[in-house]
Amino acid sequence: MSTRSGEAGTDPARRGRFVALEGPDGAGKTTQVAAVASALGALVTREPGDTALGAQLRRLLLESRGEAAPGRRAEALMMAADRAQHVESVIEPALAAGRHVVTDRFTGSSVAYQGYGRGLDPLEVLALSHFATAGLEPDLIVLLDVPVAVTARRLGEVRDRIEAAGDGFHERVRTGFLAQADVDPERWVVIDGTAAADAVAAAVLDAVRSRLGVPS
Amino acid sequence: MSTRSGEAGTDPARRGRFVALEGPDGAGKTTQVAAVASALGALVTREPGDTALGAQLRRLLLESRGEAAPGRRAEALMMAADRAQHVESVIEPALAAGRHVVTDRFTGSSVAYQGYGRGLDPLEVLALSHFATAGLEPDLIVLLDVPVAVTARRLGEVRDRIEAAGDGFHERVRTGFLAQADVDPERWVVIDGTAAADAVAAAVLDAVRSRLGVPS
Repeated sequence: MSTRSGEAGTDPARRGRFVALEGPDGAGKTTQVAAVASALGALVTREPGDTALGAQLRRLLLESRGEAAPGRRAEALMMAADRAQHVESVIEPALAAGRHVVTDRFTGSSVAYQGYGRGLDPLEVLALSHFATAGLEPDLIVLLDVPVAVTARRLGEVRDRIEAAGDGFHERVRTGFLAQADVDPERWVVIDGTAAADAVAAAVLDAVRSRLGVPS
Repeated sequence: MSTRSGEAGTDPARRGRFVALEGPDGAGKTTQVAAVASALGALVTREPGDTALGAQLRRLLLESRGEAAPGRRAEALMMAADRAQHVESVIEPALAAGRHVVTDRFTGSSVAYQGYGRGLDPLEVLALSHFATAGLEPDLIVLLDVPVAVTARRLGEVRDRIEAAGDGFHERVRTGFLAQADVDPERWVVIDGTAAADAVAAAVLDAVRSRLGVPS
């Protein structure tokens, strides 16, 4: 139904396309990332934690408690470090080889969580990401927008360190995602994540095909 | 012989002074940091690794090999993350309580190693540090300058991941330290680290007293 990685990979002059799914935990990103990747024949990846180094950083970021927990500036820098390793060793080599890549979270999450959520300057957090990625940006960013009351219900009580931040934090994160989509509508598309998974998948695939010009 | 931490700590309105020792591994920083701290009654600290989180980052930075080793952008961001945690949980609280602080490495090392050494833009590396420290800078930076041939002999064969980089890398690092001292002579003082430890200590203490106005 679409471009397969094998085909894209046969022409080294053609870079793969790069899609990021963004949104809160509990928005259904994992399901939708898999659906998009399957349709595109794309590599599936995620942040934080999709490299050997990143897995260690993810553990420090999400499982550290008390005195060992990163402060907000350390947290922002460690998320950027994870992204730098991810871009250099996973995303960029795949794109360069002509493979499409779909990532579960990218720069948009840092701006939303560490910027809006933690109260750091969103533009400073964005600058860390630009340093980390050496300028790489997704061709398309899909935001699965879901109200905090809904994700809170979906997540339940078992939460990592960042998920466990209060509802005020998660409201600011949602505001941060929507603000980014608002100022860059060429790159971002906002999809209502409260619908049934099949309906969300249809909307996401429709956006990917029409925005990226990928044949269906 | 000088201001003691206990005395400084009795006046909460008076912030402590903040001294950084910089230079290559094998320059004798550890010995000189201890001498300065003893003379000032200061808190001794170091980078990377002087917090619970930092100790984990130090291990990932210096002991990871092969695929798990950080790329140069991840390395720069992790050094900055260590610094953010260090400033927030160790240095700033001590200074705010009126205590002097002497650190073994700070921003100058990142600019020299990750900027000049790894070939990243030194101003971009400096910007990461400014984000990490929320603007905190040492009152005085003492560079122990030692030629690479001398530190190579002192270090021998057992080296961590960064120490194990080649002589060309360490030459660029030395250039990076000297360049920073050159453009900011108000804050930096360069001391010949090849002399005997006692003579170096006398020169370092003289610089600290005259530059900071600390009574001898």
